[in-house]
Amino acid sequence: MDTTPDARAVEDANEAFYRAFEALRVEDMDAVWAGRDDDLCIHPGRSALVGWSTIRESWRLIFEHSRPMRIRPVSVHVLVVGDMARVSCVERIETTTRAGGHAVVARVACTNVFMRTVRGWRMTLHHGSPIADGRFSIEDEDPSTRHDVN
Amino acid sequence: MDTTPDARAVEDANEAFYRAFEALRVEDMDAVWAGRDDDLCIHPGRSALVGWSTIRESWRLIFEHSRPMRIRPVSVHVLVVGDMARVSCVERIETTTRAGGHAVVARVACTNVFMRTVRGWRMTLHHGSPIADGRFSIEDEDPSTRHDVN
Repeated sequence: MDTTPDARAVEDANEAFYRAFEALRVEDMDAVWAGRDDDLCIHPGRSALVGWSTIRESWRLIFEHSRPMRIRPVSVHVLVVGDMARVSCVERIETTTRAGGHAVVARVACTNVFMRTVRGWRMTLHHGSPIADGRFSIEDEDPSTRHDVN
Repeated sequence: MDTTPDARAVEDANEAFYRAFEALRVEDMDAVWAGRDDDLCIHPGRSALVGWSTIRESWRLIFEHSRPMRIRPVSVHVLVVGDMARVSCVERIETTTRAGGHAVVARVACTNVFMRTVRGWRMTLHHGSPIADGRFSIEDEDPSTRHDVN
């Protein structure tokens, strides 16, 4: 595992994305994404949305129709190469049960790509896809984070 | 659209991946991937496989059980930042019909990440997920390629 400042900063940017997602606040997404015309976002089961204005509107609609939930990235892998970074993780999505506990409702395989900007590391791609159980699911619940810097 | 040598080279590397996929030849995949312990591969519906030896074995099994098909990347978006590059595309997968024609059997939303190595641009992440029809599918069949270099 690597703990360079860059790898840590990318992990922080990744965490900020999930805090914004969990808070259901599109304003917080503004501070996470690069905000470029070539930003890309692939929601589960969908093809790519291109450009921040289109992507932002998709988050606004998703948040408008979402119930409160907890989202935690697990099995996080960070690879930094110069001014771009690739993050892979599994999103554990939980909802609050009637009894006040939490129930895992979905696990989403996720790729996030960040680029270094004057405002720090910003997301320029998010790709989420539903995980079905199967023999390739060998690393879903690793709580650790692994950093690699080339 | 940008046509820098780097963007072109990344697009070529992306094409080489799909030629290897279409040929069902794991030996050709050896020349496409970085071959690192931190390579990542997310097959549709699965969580991440980590490391080239594990990923290679998954391709070998997939190829062993696949019938001949054509795979074409469409709606290709390339973004190069220094020594890393992000590609998004839609994989159109076709099989040969009894009449000798081709039928589209699947469309897969795909993120591919490449890194510059001494052997040229090599894949270090592949993430594919099935596309369901829906209102977010706005760019599935764009035949053009868009290049961006930061």
